[in-house]
Amino acid sequence: MLKVGFSRVPVSTARTHRLLFNLRRINLATPVGNRSKLIRSVMGSHGTASSQSPKLLFRQLFEKESSTYTYLLADVSHPDKPAVLIDPVDKTVDRDLSVVKELGLKLTYAMNTHVHADHVTGSGLIKSKVPEVKSVISKASGAKADVLIEHGDKIYFGDLFLETRATPGHTSGCVTYVTGDGPDQPQPKMAFTGDALLIRGCGRTDFQSGNSEQLYKSVHSQIFSLPKDTYIYPAHDYKGFTVSTVGEEMLYNLRLTKDEDTFKGIMASKYCSYPVEIKMFKFLLYKV
Amino acid sequence: MLKVGFSRVPVSTARTHRLLFNLRRINLATPVGNRSKLIRSVMGSHGTASSQSPKLLFRQLFEKESSTYTYLLADVSHPDKPAVLIDPVDKTVDRDLSVVKELGLKLTYAMNTHVHADHVTGSGLIKSKVPEVKSVISKASGAKADVLIEHGDKIYFGDLFLETRATPGHTSGCVTYVTGDGPDQPQPKMAFTGDALLIRGCGRTDFQSGNSEQLYKSVHSQIFSLPKDTYIYPAHDYKGFTVSTVGEEMLYNLRLTKDEDTFKGIMASKYCSYPVEIKMFKFLLYKV
Repeated sequence: MLKVGFSRVPVSTARTHRLLFNLRRINLATPVGNRSKLIRSVMGSHGTASSQSPKLLFRQLFEKESSTYTYLLADVSHPDKPAVLIDPVDKTVDRDLSVVKELGLKLTYAMNTHVHADHVTGSGLIKSKVPEVKSVISKASGAKADVLIEHGDKIYFGDLFLETRATPGHTSGCVTYVTGDGPDQPQPKMAFTGDALLIRGCGRTDFQSGNSEQLYKSVHSQIFSLPKDTYIYPAHDYKGFTVSTVGEEMLYNLRLTKDEDTFKGIMASKYCSYPVEIKMFKFLLYKV
Repeated sequence: MLKVGFSRVPVSTARTHRLLFNLRRINLATPVGNRSKLIRSVMGSHGTASSQSPKLLFRQLFEKESSTYTYLLADVSHPDKPAVLIDPVDKTVDRDLSVVKELGLKLTYAMNTHVHADHVTGSGLIKSKVPEVKSVISKASGAKADVLIEHGDKIYFGDLFLETRATPGHTSGCVTYVTGDGPDQPQPKMAFTGDALLIRGCGRTDFQSGNSEQLYKSVHSQIFSLPKDTYIYPAHDYKGFTVSTVGEEMLYNLRLTKDEDTFKGIMASKYCSYPVEIKMFKFLLYKV
């Protein structure tokens, strides 16, 4: 029998409401269900609420219109609380900078996993408001930024760092940022996958240097090779998911769990029209 | 000088891309800014990515149309992985049950912080699909459910539990669920505040038994009395925030940081029309 139930006991606070408290406890018998070995293997190592580091402050932020996630990470053990924003969106720059200020952080990098028609970066706007911030994007993207990174590069903020993995395929310049190895680095790891790997899906590969074969190889070699309990934080989500894990996506991703030829077929048949933002893209590409 | 910078080193994976790796490291000098004592006091104790318990699995889920958050918590150390959903939404029940199934969890409770016109619960629909799930709501809400809870009641799932705090004011039946004290319970604590306390705001108090004076007292006595590093997980967010802390809201909440009379004035002047869903509410109230 499973130990579930509810009990009624007083809540100890300085100023409790004047309510009548009854002390009782009810145990509800619940049948024990079967669990497959497969599911157990996925679950085994991600039983925590989120990644943990005594130094890390982490916030996930959402831009509703484009369904884009922006991530704020900071080393709050450092006197200056240096922080990075991953994939800031132009429309929410003021919100993001306000949070940075309220939390007493010092924003050092505005990092991009990629630029794309549905992904209008706010790093240029951030730089216009906070000139000391450095914009970051991959060299392979062809975009301009203060720091042009390549596979293997590490971005430090305080004692914490993010490692760059080239994950082209959605665009030729896509990268995934992965939290580091070492003392005080977040455990489980966190991977900011941009559009290379979405929760149960992936970014389109039909325009702007997209290549489904390349994306398949990128995800399998660079993301699915991470520990299974690594948290997946994508650039977008359209169904209300906020996080997944490598283990989950290896089992349940609707596209990347297929063999390569099936995946390429799915990607070839999936999209037939460009997003509206493509028309604006040529003006945005060089404004990272 | 602040230690920030980036380095270029190979990423060690089984199947790396064939890229040229350059080994170098650049240190960027960054001026050390001033930080106020006030901000430091807020930041001091929430330097982690999220709450941590070796037993807890936690997922935050979003319903975009109503900007509602649903929360999934499970004790994954228990053989049955008993789970609860807080504030499930009718439109996303299939998504939520799919996640529960994929993660190998056993859903035991569908819990509601409240029912309201903008907050259409999915717990009735969940029960129709998974009959062994018990719906939970406060006795004071006047709604029907399998478990009618009161202030001080605890809801157990495995070895973890949520404690109920009556936080009326948005509606007379609003409650906040707070993770428990004790070994293996999440640290920092997590408070699921419903509409009593939103990030930088609060729920409206102008209809359906709303009372601004009551809400002010509820938040100050039942939520602001929690440890300052307690994570605030609200039922809704309209600006893309996913989480806050008690300490942050005590400093930056746009309404609850005011004195009580100012707060009541804000709430009296803020709203002049009912949401569309109010017309449907009488049909929904008793379908928890």
